[in-house]
Amino acid sequence: MFNERLEKQVEFITEIDKLKHINRQTILMDGSRHENDAEHSWHLAVMAMLLSEHAVDKNIDLLKVIKMVLVHDLVEIDAGDTYCYDEKACEDKAEREQKAANRLFNILPEDQAREIRKLWEEFEERKTPEACFASALDRFQPLLHNYKTQGKSWREHGVTKDKVIKRNKAIEDGSVTMWEYAERFINESVEKGYLGK
Amino acid sequence: MFNERLEKQVEFITEIDKLKHINRQTILMDGSRHENDAEHSWHLAVMAMLLSEHAVDKNIDLLKVIKMVLVHDLVEIDAGDTYCYDEKACEDKAEREQKAANRLFNILPEDQAREIRKLWEEFEERKTPEACFASALDRFQPLLHNYKTQGKSWREHGVTKDKVIKRNKAIEDGSVTMWEYAERFINESVEKGYLGK
Repeated sequence: MFNERLEKQVEFITEIDKLKHINRQTILMDGSRHENDAEHSWHLAVMAMLLSEHAVDKNIDLLKVIKMVLVHDLVEIDAGDTYCYDEKACEDKAEREQKAANRLFNILPEDQAREIRKLWEEFEERKTPEACFASALDRFQPLLHNYKTQGKSWREHGVTKDKVIKRNKAIEDGSVTMWEYAERFINESVEKGYLGK
Repeated sequence: MFNERLEKQVEFITEIDKLKHINRQTILMDGSRHENDAEHSWHLAVMAMLLSEHAVDKNIDLLKVIKMVLVHDLVEIDAGDTYCYDEKACEDKAEREQKAANRLFNILPEDQAREIRKLWEEFEERKTPEACFASALDRFQPLLHNYKTQGKSWREHGVTKDKVIKRNKAIEDGSVTMWEYAERFINESVEKGYLGK
């Protein structure tokens, strides 16, 4: 073996290429097709770079936020994308994703498997300032896509304003400013008929 | 206006959604389709997280490397992807990309426009340890994709080993270990007929 750590890392880097095939419900802003998880994760990482000044916690660890959003959807390689407004699919989501985490992360050298799992679990628990902000980005981005596509994905699934508010109010825990801004385009979406009342 | 900085940032975040439509010559590892720049940038960012231990400079600033790879291809939204083995297209690449940088980055608040431009220019100049490592990732990843797809993109363009070596030897400036590893699968690719002699 040439270099055991590098071999394992390259195996993982090869495996996660599959994230580029995991389609989300989000539609690209020009309305042409669904977004995939790799594109989504990239978008969130750039957003983290640009929007961290709006985080509730002014001393937020930006590197940790970026790492978190880069890996937060990896488990969907095995578990698939669960639509946030599909309550039934959400029931066994945690179990499916735990299995996926066990298989995927353990391809890496042990210390790195542990780091990625910790980042993913911290993101899922939404308790630390970094996780709250990362999660705010993860909710804000699809809202923006829906607004820009005149609610294409909302209309497809008959989603209503109360569901959107319920799902996205947690943006406030990561960024009050971003939530105030999001509320504006949620209201505007209802007025314009992009989103059901 | 609600919040001038956030409005500009959201305009930029909306604009860069277009990166998801910029196709590269790289083929996804399952051979199904071309990769786009957003997916590529995500892949490099995760690779930066995992491979920085192999960087020549052990004190490399990982956050800077990740920021660099996240934004390094944004100019291609206007300038398009220039295939690294297409010498003619490379002639006016710099000019096309400068124009793109002026338009795109200036959507952002001034301080952030300056930061992104600096990251992009540093990446392009390949002088700092962070830029050398980011650039190594940017070369290593397509090599890996080519190897995994039995040289699909190399064969399509009739690329030969000497060109691949010439283009990718710079990996060594970012990571000696990664270059030694890459050399192994370049040689193996020639042996297996994925890459012309």
